[in-house]
Amino acid sequence: MSVHISSLAESLPVFLQQRNYSAIAVLVDSNTKRFCYPAIKNFLPKHKIITIRAGEENKNLSSCESVWQGLTDAHFDRHALVIDLGGGVIGDLGGFCASTYKRGIDFIQIPTTLLSQVDASVGGKLGIDFHGFKNHIGVFKLPEAVLIDTVFLQTLPERELRSGFAEIIKHCLIADEAKWNVIRRLDLHQQNWEDLVAHSVAVKKKVVEQDPTEQGIRKILNYGHTVGHALETYLLADPKRRLLHGEAIAVGMIAEAFIAARKGLIPAQLLEQIEEYLFAVYGRVAITDADLEPVLALTLQDKKNRGGQVRMALLDGPGRCTYDVPVSKAEMRRALEYYRT
Amino acid sequence: MSVHISSLAESLPVFLQQRNYSAIAVLVDSNTKRFCYPAIKNFLPKHKIITIRAGEENKNLSSCESVWQGLTDAHFDRHALVIDLGGGVIGDLGGFCASTYKRGIDFIQIPTTLLSQVDASVGGKLGIDFHGFKNHIGVFKLPEAVLIDTVFLQTLPERELRSGFAEIIKHCLIADEAKWNVIRRLDLHQQNWEDLVAHSVAVKKKVVEQDPTEQGIRKILNYGHTVGHALETYLLADPKRRLLHGEAIAVGMIAEAFIAARKGLIPAQLLEQIEEYLFAVYGRVAITDADLEPVLALTLQDKKNRGGQVRMALLDGPGRCTYDVPVSKAEMRRALEYYRT
Repeated sequence: MSVHISSLAESLPVFLQQRNYSAIAVLVDSNTKRFCYPAIKNFLPKHKIITIRAGEENKNLSSCESVWQGLTDAHFDRHALVIDLGGGVIGDLGGFCASTYKRGIDFIQIPTTLLSQVDASVGGKLGIDFHGFKNHIGVFKLPEAVLIDTVFLQTLPERELRSGFAEIIKHCLIADEAKWNVIRRLDLHQQNWEDLVAHSVAVKKKVVEQDPTEQGIRKILNYGHTVGHALETYLLADPKRRLLHGEAIAVGMIAEAFIAARKGLIPAQLLEQIEEYLFAVYGRVAITDADLEPVLALTLQDKKNRGGQVRMALLDGPGRCTYDVPVSKAEMRRALEYYRT
Repeated sequence: MSVHISSLAESLPVFLQQRNYSAIAVLVDSNTKRFCYPAIKNFLPKHKIITIRAGEENKNLSSCESVWQGLTDAHFDRHALVIDLGGGVIGDLGGFCASTYKRGIDFIQIPTTLLSQVDASVGGKLGIDFHGFKNHIGVFKLPEAVLIDTVFLQTLPERELRSGFAEIIKHCLIADEAKWNVIRRLDLHQQNWEDLVAHSVAVKKKVVEQDPTEQGIRKILNYGHTVGHALETYLLADPKRRLLHGEAIAVGMIAEAFIAARKGLIPAQLLEQIEEYLFAVYGRVAITDADLEPVLALTLQDKKNRGGQVRMALLDGPGRCTYDVPVSKAEMRRALEYYRT
């Protein structure tokens, strides 16, 4: 998988010149069609635009059907290319549709949000939500290329930027103590995005290349995600409380750092650092008594479990992470209660 | 990919003992639930049965949704196994659902029809039909094992047996002149199925292992399928004229042998042999003037095409086949007209 962090004016024509595609489709949502598509359309030969509705709630089978139908209507053959221009929804769904259209055609990712630049676009996890379960249906497949241009970050709302930052924090916490000590001394607006995007991509790429299909070491990338994903899924049903992915992961990172500390895997001081910084950047999400049980129940659907037992990726030091640690429901409940108080 | 041709009483327990699955689902349709499931259920530990409606018209996204729902409801994790017990529809759809559930869980194929024993179960082509296009959405993925027991052939209607025989004929024509000279001297009921199933599996396996994702040599397995598939798809909409897969492929093999002969790739004598034998076994399918144009149009959706040009696998001798041969609409029209007269 080749990742290029540079201006698209440069990387996109270079990529296309090396290939000989029979046709090209650009997949966008209503937002990226307006804000990002104009920045690339002049670098593309003749192409078809396929538009889906924006938002995680449209990361479903019904959107896949419109993408497949769009490719079919345009008589795309196996030698065509799909360009995913957008955030995680576009990348995950567009990659899944391309990987299953006629049993798989090429696709590239052009991630336009911070979250997708540092996380979703790298690693080949593709898929859609299914009846309330996140990324429940999908495949592992690497894109032909990931082209990252940080110019798109300028168009992002602050909340989106903050959400993406959570994965950057995660990459520091699991793999790079020194970088963690840099970022935790700066607030959101003082960060150096060019540098952090490159750092996160390098961390993730290294892990993914060792274990593309998540049999082992790749599971460390799920730090914060067992609890975080469950919370995100649970709140998805309530438009007023819905969280962005990174906001939920920030909660998960605190809860799971608490579990790690209780198990003696990390010192109390690291838990305090994590807590302090994450509360400062993200605030505290309100979680009620009534929320606890359904959130805990959802952790049982986590893809990393085995035989009904929750397995978690847990920090085992600053800049270090282990995985497959069995965690009981009671431990997770205590962690969420700790988070609340 | 390991293929075992033996009694399931032997192969199934041996396979399961080597693995440690967290849960097992058996996918059946209404027919295989009744006729085949009783033959294996005593060799299985605790398992869940998922039933879909029988028939190619149910090889669609809606059946996938029920399979995914069934696996989700039973809280299947990534270490679960799906056993596809049935013909091509069950194998293709069940394999696709397993390969996309939580980004892929293990599955094995227990093919119960002659067609699926000699063709569909071997090779890792998985998928479903989409808005009238056959196998339009899918992936390439090999099963953990293919367990073949020819005892199931005894329960097959003659028409199903004859349909499966077409792929056996194809495997002889593209790869084994001597075997072709054996089978063409025997009628349907004189064939040695044990021997032919093993032969077909060996031919197909050898080709697939050289080229799992059909970049080159694997395309020879599509002999008869460009025209055959288009005809099959076209007639699917008309319940009275609908053909079984092998019946359509038999038409395709004659039409495409004619094209090969016209291009000077095979001697006229081989075309005559093929014609004579296939008409004797399959009879002649009635094709009207009105059918020609829509069937020809459908060949343009063939997955092996490139840039709107039909590419065909064509015999280039007895027991030999080449691929990627450009064929014009006019040549295909002449071939279908030849078939009719």
